[in-house]
Amino acid sequence: MVEFVLDPQLEKDSMWITDLPLCTVRLINDMNYPWLILVPKVANICEVIELSSQEQQVLWSESAMVSQVITHLFTPDKLNLAALGNMVPQLHLHHIARFKDDVSWPKPIWGQFPAKPYVQSELNKRIVLIQEALNKGAKQ
Amino acid sequence: MVEFVLDPQLEKDSMWITDLPLCTVRLINDMNYPWLILVPKVANICEVIELSSQEQQVLWSESAMVSQVITHLFTPDKLNLAALGNMVPQLHLHHIARFKDDVSWPKPIWGQFPAKPYVQSELNKRIVLIQEALNKGAKQ
Repeated sequence: MVEFVLDPQLEKDSMWITDLPLCTVRLINDMNYPWLILVPKVANICEVIELSSQEQQVLWSESAMVSQVITHLFTPDKLNLAALGNMVPQLHLHHIARFKDDVSWPKPIWGQFPAKPYVQSELNKRIVLIQEALNKGAKQ
Repeated sequence: MVEFVLDPQLEKDSMWITDLPLCTVRLINDMNYPWLILVPKVANICEVIELSSQEQQVLWSESAMVSQVITHLFTPDKLNLAALGNMVPQLHLHHIARFKDDVSWPKPIWGQFPAKPYVQSELNKRIVLIQEALNKGAKQ
């Protein structure tokens, strides 16, 4: 059995938040938007439909939980949900809180503005905030 | 009970293909990419998590079926799956077949190139092709 290894580009762009039964959850290091990715810990998967039906169900239930947490913590004007993967094929599901006054609104965020890394203290605070909310959500 | 009405912008940009139990399936009139949208026939829904858990399950199973059909018909290099809705808030789920030689590759398609409408005969052929594959898929 081939072991799951996180894509190096995703690892570089994001910080570990927590592990759910199927996915590892990471925060993209970009202050422009609260932006989480879910990466199923299954080797060699590029498309949602390459997961088994059961794994797909878990993926979408974890995605819904992450969406609820983002909505609760940040009250965005819109959630953006996407699995693109043209640059990094390893399946990763974007969950982005969008605001009518964010830098890219109303455009999709990709290719608009370079990432604006968090200062370390803000990054730590945000990670803990999301971690606690997700761990609470996962227990419900 | 408020009745579902398709957003006029989505109606203008796309052609009806078929109705599944939850979603209406439409082809975006843009020759640049095979591009389908799924719109749940539920009034006043902007986010996936505003659907009931049961509706979400049906949505993702219809999405998987549509993804399978697109993969089978067009053998894309990558599927792009997205629910954005910054411009048209009515929930609609994009399924786009992407190719390494398409006009926008590897960028996301939004805001790259203006839609290139199909000529009528090509549009009709494509609609029938997808309709038949989806109706076959829905019966399985």
